[in-house]
Amino acid sequence: MSQEPRLLEIRKNVLKQNDLIARRLRDRFRAARVFVVSLVSSPGSGKTEFLEKTLTLLQPRYRVAALVGDLATNNDAERLARSHAPVKQITTGTLCHLEAAMVEKALEDWDLGRLDFLFIENVGNLVCPASYDLGEDLRLVLFSVTEGEDKPLKYPTIFNSADVAIVSKIDLAAVVQFDWHAALGNIQAVRPGVPIFKLSAKTTEGMEQYLEFLETRLVETRSAACSSRL
Amino acid sequence: MSQEPRLLEIRKNVLKQNDLIARRLRDRFRAARVFVVSLVSSPGSGKTEFLEKTLTLLQPRYRVAALVGDLATNNDAERLARSHAPVKQITTGTLCHLEAAMVEKALEDWDLGRLDFLFIENVGNLVCPASYDLGEDLRLVLFSVTEGEDKPLKYPTIFNSADVAIVSKIDLAAVVQFDWHAALGNIQAVRPGVPIFKLSAKTTEGMEQYLEFLETRLVETRSAACSSRL
Repeated sequence: MSQEPRLLEIRKNVLKQNDLIARRLRDRFRAARVFVVSLVSSPGSGKTEFLEKTLTLLQPRYRVAALVGDLATNNDAERLARSHAPVKQITTGTLCHLEAAMVEKALEDWDLGRLDFLFIENVGNLVCPASYDLGEDLRLVLFSVTEGEDKPLKYPTIFNSADVAIVSKIDLAAVVQFDWHAALGNIQAVRPGVPIFKLSAKTTEGMEQYLEFLETRLVETRSAACSSRL
Repeated sequence: MSQEPRLLEIRKNVLKQNDLIARRLRDRFRAARVFVVSLVSSPGSGKTEFLEKTLTLLQPRYRVAALVGDLATNNDAERLARSHAPVKQITTGTLCHLEAAMVEKALEDWDLGRLDFLFIENVGNLVCPASYDLGEDLRLVLFSVTEGEDKPLKYPTIFNSADVAIVSKIDLAAVVQFDWHAALGNIQAVRPGVPIFKLSAKTTEGMEQYLEFLETRLVETRSAACSSRL
């Protein structure tokens, strides 16, 4: 294990480099007045279906787009394209998270000024994405009722790095005898005070409250940006 | 991204170091005539319930034990202890996988000669554990019907590094309208010829075939070890 200190040092450099690019991205997002939301979760918690429904429901009133990260395949981009929003896939190869540089590269030829919301779906992983700032305004962590109530305790860092927790697939809660009391308690234990939305992308139950929250945050962020210019 | 070549080089060293320890572990397992099975999957695919049922069902006829990896908490070890098998928790902190050195350390004071089966449950992650040999005889990858049929295509490396694929939570297959044809096709596309078991740890449907497979592999491995000594 003699390599560990050197590895740690390099990891710090990579994160520092990432933070620099994330800051540059954040400035660009702010200037373009686009509200950026990233999504993290384990594989199979329903991120893509949730994002597809989000894009479809916001689209009548907002200009929306998405970047979607995966190790391999363009499946998610193809699936999200059904929402008719602009979507780009980022494939990471063997890397278990998106980095700010990948987001920056993917957005190279995009005119962000034409967007209200940009969504970034991270690689399905409850560990690696936690440390990488992507310049987003809001980070959502999803976990589905089928994954079990203990996930916040087992993956505290990712829940800690998130601004909002979403409990997804609630249409399956009764079938899997989901213990709401335990689940919500575990989220609050790890990240006290975090806003929590319970929803099902399939039935759209609970989607409305969450979309209202996003809209409020968009307005607030834009107002704050205006005030700071006065 | 100027650090990348240096990072890659160090990553190679870490893996090389891991392989050396894994080889040492494998020799120790072979000498003790214990059959070692590791489990990888995304968080919430039901690894722990599956392992608890495996331990409980094997225990009347075999001497079984388990190591279980998580970032945080001893929940899994406590849960598995209900099977009355010896269980030890390994907490990895922020690391998204187990390494051979952690397994070696956890087994330091164990007399492996008293065991028939040792199970190692990895951290819930479909990316990081793929590259780390733990000296196991058999690596199982689980994915649950609630995660979606596309997971093998999206996480090909972990399916490629596995010896057996387990489709879990089949009691929920009908509710989530699981597409068996697509799922099995995707597994075979990524890892042609891999044995596949479909089961539910909850109802125990399908567990019998899988346990028979393990027993056969134990006998075969012990026979092979005897022949090589002749």
